[in-house]
Order: sequence, then C-alpha cells, then structure tokens
Amino acid sequence: MTVKLVVLYTQPSDADAFDRHYLGTHMPLVRAIPGLQRAESGRIGAYLDGGEQTFYRVAELYFADQQALEASFGSDEGKATAADYQQIAPPGSRMFVQAVDE
Amino acid sequence: MTVKLVVLYTQPSDADAFDRHYLGTHMPLVRAIPGLQRAESGRIGAYLDGGEQTFYRVAELYFADQQALEASFGSDEGKATAADYQQIAPPGSRMFVQAVDE
Repeated sequence: MTVKLVVLYTQPSDADAFDRHYLGTHMPLVRAIPGLQRAESGRIGAYLDGGEQTFYRVAELYFADQQALEASFGSDEGKATAADYQQIAPPGSRMFVQAVDE
Repeated sequence: MTVKLVVLYTQPSDADAFDRHYLGTHMPLVRAIPGLQRAESGRIGAYLDGGEQTFYRVAELYFADQQALEASFGSDEGKATAADYQQIAPPGSRMFVQAVDE
C-alpha cells in the first residue's frame, strides 16, 4: 500500500527566504532520497474554513510502502534531508505518515 | 496551474462509523463532481513529530486550475458534497486550497 510522508509547514517569518531555501536547497535533497516515488509540494492559497492560517506549505513524499519509507530515512540522503528539515521547518510544523486509499 | 482542495479531518468520535460514511457515501459524491481530475484520501498512521494526533484523515481533490475548482463548487454535485461534508467533518477540521508546484 502506497504511503506518503506529509509535512505541513507553518508560516515562516520570512516567506521569500523560506521558499528560496525550500525550492533551491531542500527539494533537491528530497529528490535524491532513494525509494522516493514522487514528491509534491505547494503553497496554500485560501483557507475555506474561515479558520486561522496555520499552515503555509504542504509537502508530500510518496513511497511504495511503509518499509520503503523507513528504509529511505535510514539512507544518507534521507538523513541529509531530515537535517535540513530541522533547519527550515517553522515551530509547530506537522509531520505524519498517511496510507493512501487504493 | 493545478490546484488541490485539501481537507484535514480531525479525530471522529466513532472512527468506524466515520469511515463507513466517508467511503460509502462521501467519496461517491466527491467522484461525481464535474471537473474533478483526481481524488486521493487516506487515514493517518503515525505522527513523526511527537505532537498531538490532531488529524485523522486527509483528502485531496485535484482540479486543472482555480477556475475549475470554483466552477465545481457551484455545481449541484459540488453542493451535495459540501452539504455531506458539513454532516461528517468533526469540529476543527481544516479545508484549504493548495497550488501544486510544477
């Protein structure tokens, strides 16, 4: 069963600097992760629920299954990506694994 | 530019009843929405951030662009889906539009 690593980035203090780092440095690290099937990301436009604009950007990393996801995190590329994530993720950012319905 | 309607469902009081309604009633309504390119959904497994298990399920509806998304919401099928969403979404569920990076 396909699984995704989903990251919800909260609002950065400097959106332009965040996006520069995200697109120029972080995404190349993501794309080098072994076992990654697909990566999708994008900024949030409008909130339709009338609530707080908690999150700024969503990122989703697709893997064939839970085992492939875990293996990717043990790789050097996975560790480099995780280290960079720690540098850029604003406080309160969320990260979880989602099983994709077939 | 592809846009997604993203829904983050918070934890339902009865997960089995929620999933039954979600998969049996809500998803058929979603799939009938005109202009919908793709729908993807799934339950959240593990939280990797050590934080609260705020969300239970993620749903993403893909449209060709913002205009297609807005048109879909004006349709009878879109309105029926929105009405059903109001019935099932636990309090605190989030809904936003995300632009997908090309």
